[in-house]
Amino acid sequence: MRYGVAAFPSKKLQDLANSYRKRYDTKYAKVPPHITLKEPFDLDESEVQKVIEKIREIAKSSAPFDVSVLKFSSFYPVTNTLYMKLQENSEMRRLQEKLNEGELDFGQEHPFVPHITIGQEMDYDELSDVYGRLKMEKIEHHETIDRFSLLYQLEDGTWTAYETFLLGGTQ
Amino acid sequence: MRYGVAAFPSKKLQDLANSYRKRYDTKYAKVPPHITLKEPFDLDESEVQKVIEKIREIAKSSAPFDVSVLKFSSFYPVTNTLYMKLQENSEMRRLQEKLNEGELDFGQEHPFVPHITIGQEMDYDELSDVYGRLKMEKIEHHETIDRFSLLYQLEDGTWTAYETFLLGGTQ
Repeated sequence: MRYGVAAFPSKKLQDLANSYRKRYDTKYAKVPPHITLKEPFDLDESEVQKVIEKIREIAKSSAPFDVSVLKFSSFYPVTNTLYMKLQENSEMRRLQEKLNEGELDFGQEHPFVPHITIGQEMDYDELSDVYGRLKMEKIEHHETIDRFSLLYQLEDGTWTAYETFLLGGTQ
Repeated sequence: MRYGVAAFPSKKLQDLANSYRKRYDTKYAKVPPHITLKEPFDLDESEVQKVIEKIREIAKSSAPFDVSVLKFSSFYPVTNTLYMKLQENSEMRRLQEKLNEGELDFGQEHPFVPHITIGQEMDYDELSDVYGRLKMEKIEHHETIDRFSLLYQLEDGTWTAYETFLLGGTQ
């Protein structure tokens, strides 16, 4: 089965992301707006429990992290993706590293660029038009993330949350 | 904010439900296939923490429950909904009661009929046609549910999982 690890930001930030996603993101209906902490990976049923135990350990020993959105950006020309760029900080970076090293190192295709996707698989013309406008817009949003989720993918490509993990014994 | 409590069945059962939902369920893209344990309710931010604490307590003191799907059914003529009917059992019933009584009693519009919706807001003609066919189909699926989730609704009607609760100290 295919799994992924992501954090869902506040309703406010998700609503803002969705106001773009519904127009520009081909995967809008597949998953709510999210911050990917671990790229999708495949696991046999026999391995799931061990991986979850490890993720629980990591969550307990990690601190909640701040999210600041100060600009829009694009992965063009690598992919025709638009995103809200998140300012990196050491708590976020360390959590992402712990979720991708040692027994959780399943190979990471992209370097970690903390972001919330708001458009993907866009035509070049639309991408440059929308990105041109977004670069002029002022955005400033701050919040603290105190949890993240392990998700799995259904046959139709949508994602279901399997378990949430509270950071740093928030519970 | 609007919240709801639901259990997500296994990927296998969700995939089966989605094979119908993608054609017959107007809310297909809003939430993965689920078993509603508490109807949507509104909460002020100030009340959320207290409600979550109560739900955590209930989860810890509740047992995992069996899910058996043996037939399709319909809520027609109350609503033009098709669903997989789940056999009720005392663990499932008791959990649903605990999530809807005392300080969690926010009013329940419908009696508890454990089910997974596979079609809703259907034309009468399509409903009777599809239901007629499904009544002839054999279905038999059994599994155990060991967790459920608190979800909240975004402005566009989609649901995000806020926290999962493991039943009976599964963790």
